[in-house]
Amino acid sequence: MRDNFPRFGERVMRRLDELAADTDEPGKITRLFLSPSHKRAMARVRGFMEAAALSVEEDDIGNVVGRLESSVPDAPVFILGSHIDSVRDAGRYDGGFGVLSAIEVADEIRRRGDKLPFSLEIVAFGDEEGVRFPATLSGSRALAGNFDFESLGAKDENGVSLAEALRGFGCNIEGIGKIARDPRRACGYLESHIEQGPVLEAENLALGVVTAIAGMCRLNVTVEGEAGHAGTVPMGRRKDPLAGSAAMISAVEDEARRTPDVVATVGVIEASPGAINVIPAKVRFSVDLRAPVDEVRERAKAKVEARLSSIATKRGLSIGFTPLDEAKATPCDPGMMRELSDALARQGHRVFTLPSGAGHDAMAMARLCPVAMLFLRCKAGISHNPAEAITVEDAQAAIEVMLDFILHFRPTAHAEATEERSVSQGGRPAVVAQISSLDTTPLSR
Amino acid sequence: MRDNFPRFGERVMRRLDELAADTDEPGKITRLFLSPSHKRAMARVRGFMEAAALSVEEDDIGNVVGRLESSVPDAPVFILGSHIDSVRDAGRYDGGFGVLSAIEVADEIRRRGDKLPFSLEIVAFGDEEGVRFPATLSGSRALAGNFDFESLGAKDENGVSLAEALRGFGCNIEGIGKIARDPRRACGYLESHIEQGPVLEAENLALGVVTAIAGMCRLNVTVEGEAGHAGTVPMGRRKDPLAGSAAMISAVEDEARRTPDVVATVGVIEASPGAINVIPAKVRFSVDLRAPVDEVRERAKAKVEARLSSIATKRGLSIGFTPLDEAKATPCDPGMMRELSDALARQGHRVFTLPSGAGHDAMAMARLCPVAMLFLRCKAGISHNPAEAITVEDAQAAIEVMLDFILHFRPTAHAEATEERSVSQGGRPAVVAQISSLDTTPLSR
Repeated sequence: MRDNFPRFGERVMRRLDELAADTDEPGKITRLFLSPSHKRAMARVRGFMEAAALSVEEDDIGNVVGRLESSVPDAPVFILGSHIDSVRDAGRYDGGFGVLSAIEVADEIRRRGDKLPFSLEIVAFGDEEGVRFPATLSGSRALAGNFDFESLGAKDENGVSLAEALRGFGCNIEGIGKIARDPRRACGYLESHIEQGPVLEAENLALGVVTAIAGMCRLNVTVEGEAGHAGTVPMGRRKDPLAGSAAMISAVEDEARRTPDVVATVGVIEASPGAINVIPAKVRFSVDLRAPVDEVRERAKAKVEARLSSIATKRGLSIGFTPLDEAKATPCDPGMMRELSDALARQGHRVFTLPSGAGHDAMAMARLCPVAMLFLRCKAGISHNPAEAITVEDAQAAIEVMLDFILHFRPTAHAEATEERSVSQGGRPAVVAQISSLDTTPLSR
Repeated sequence: MRDNFPRFGERVMRRLDELAADTDEPGKITRLFLSPSHKRAMARVRGFMEAAALSVEEDDIGNVVGRLESSVPDAPVFILGSHIDSVRDAGRYDGGFGVLSAIEVADEIRRRGDKLPFSLEIVAFGDEEGVRFPATLSGSRALAGNFDFESLGAKDENGVSLAEALRGFGCNIEGIGKIARDPRRACGYLESHIEQGPVLEAENLALGVVTAIAGMCRLNVTVEGEAGHAGTVPMGRRKDPLAGSAAMISAVEDEARRTPDVVATVGVIEASPGAINVIPAKVRFSVDLRAPVDEVRERAKAKVEARLSSIATKRGLSIGFTPLDEAKATPCDPGMMRELSDALARQGHRVFTLPSGAGHDAMAMARLCPVAMLFLRCKAGISHNPAEAITVEDAQAAIEVMLDFILHFRPTAHAEATEERSVSQGGRPAVVAQISSLDTTPLSR
């Protein structure tokens, strides 16, 4: 089968270059949710979808949805997609590749005249990065029936609320509730995405199957000591919160190093007053801690807090922890993971699995239906940066595997699983369903 | 003698409160060099000097000089003083105490009708803090004949050069060269100053004799690694410059802790890009390292640089050191230290010596003549802060000791030493003079 595929890679790379022109900052890629460049990117994606003969709809949360109808009456729906918003000064592959590669898949199925036992929906979500508003995954949460209506009051840095921005964009807020897909009809979600990390490159592999999207907790740590003149306070009389924070940051790193699959990062640090000749009075730093298993993350977080508190006590410093954000891990569907692995093997790839440390629309979609993710090698693990890069060969390989997966996918058992899921998430106690034929467990959120 | 002294402490505290009203920021004390509040403070100090019957002159670098003439013909000059500029949002004692306490000493000598074998000059220097211009000690360097004429081009944050500011203040730049005192006539300089550190308070002592003004070196350390997504780069694949900087800051602290009399401070740290979910690409931090003995400082600096470089190498980080500033230590004159100690003992104090970690006008004056400094206990070691505090009793004690010192001081041998100093600093090779009767060595600059 492999050699019969058209040259998807070249077209998708060309289209990704075209999409990169839709930006609010000339010379950079900056495409924030509901911005003018988002509108232009939606029109461009619509054009690509229409060229693939998909029926296209723009919904009331700013998603573009292209649909390839199954010939089977009353067929379920399989969803492919990713996002087209970006961070500021972004690369051109994060998000965009998942959308445009999915259009290639649909176009090829249409071209071949293959009959699928499900309809295909290709979605270009509008808000995954969460840069403009203090809210994120608005598009995928709306599809999954889990839109946060309170976020409509969230404001961007110009004081424009999400509701105002949606209206200005031509969206009808009353229509958002109707975007939710029927969980009984949604049989699966597959997202391809650049890895945004260095693992596949180090493994010399184009592709990998994601096991789970890591859970994450973020906190601010505030350490207070005693300011003093850098020349006049002997070392033994200091309560230096920056020297203390240095010991704490080393402890954060050590705790993550000694726990497999845990990563922990201090990305922000501020010392005040911040003068070369003044022992700081106060230091604030951030901790971002992630693990693909919730219990592991929670244990690591507790150990980090305990070690930091102990350092503070020994040094006569006071310490405070402000939780900023916490998200549970999203395990990918074991059945879909296996089928994706089979597609990789059929296409001649070594099957390799890895967790995703970054968040994705699949997190929101997992509430609706079983999800899987295919990771694509990116150069040096760089993302959220103009230096983001993939190769045309890897793009080709990813689309081939996605296509193979879709052509082999059979929705029946998944539909049953999602019915169970829909019940378990309707406000009643969660029921852990075991659909033994597929080894599928409902996804926790 | 002790009980006969007037209540200097009360008057000096009252006058320090009055001086605090001269500020450019209402509600705070901010008195920058050549500012309107500096002009008002000069007028106020002139008033205090005139009330003590001193003859007063304002010179062309913004110093106020009050003179009490000796009755001895052709007598040498002993200089007492400190500065009246301040940092932003300062306390009221740093600098001001040294000036106003010196006026009390002169006033008391005049009042008693004591005949001194030297004239007294009380100087209120205008630029010790170096806040407004990237230049410092302008006033004391001018007196010492070491004014940096290149600094006239230095600009403040509004783009006003020091030369322009001086002219606007009414100073004649051509007159600056004439401010230099004759080293053959200057027999000593004594400065009283708040300690700006916690040592005297911890020793339960009002006063201490300064052994040396510590030498200092300042550098910026730049650590570069590899930015990455906080979720996607496994710990083992990171080149995290902030984790590396944490280990380095701990090494700076450790090196200072293990070396007596050395202090080292990291007061500034910046991580870029500085986002909670991004492993930083680059970290910059400052190091301020001080020691009262130059060789000790130089050795500690070399060890710190070696340890930091070794940490960088182990972690695959690159490191750069940018020297910002380096100042040699200024040892106080052993003969004057001994005489100051004798005055302390006569006034019933335990003689305690300590180095000064902060810089002072005495550093510049040491080029002109032998110098000594008397440190005064301040509350909790706090300075450069509105919370700066001293007690009226300690102020009284300091003025009593200064007065006792002046009344016992005999200039002859010092005058010989300064002649030697003047020769050794005239551009010819330095000559280390030993005036054995006083155990005085010329001061290195």
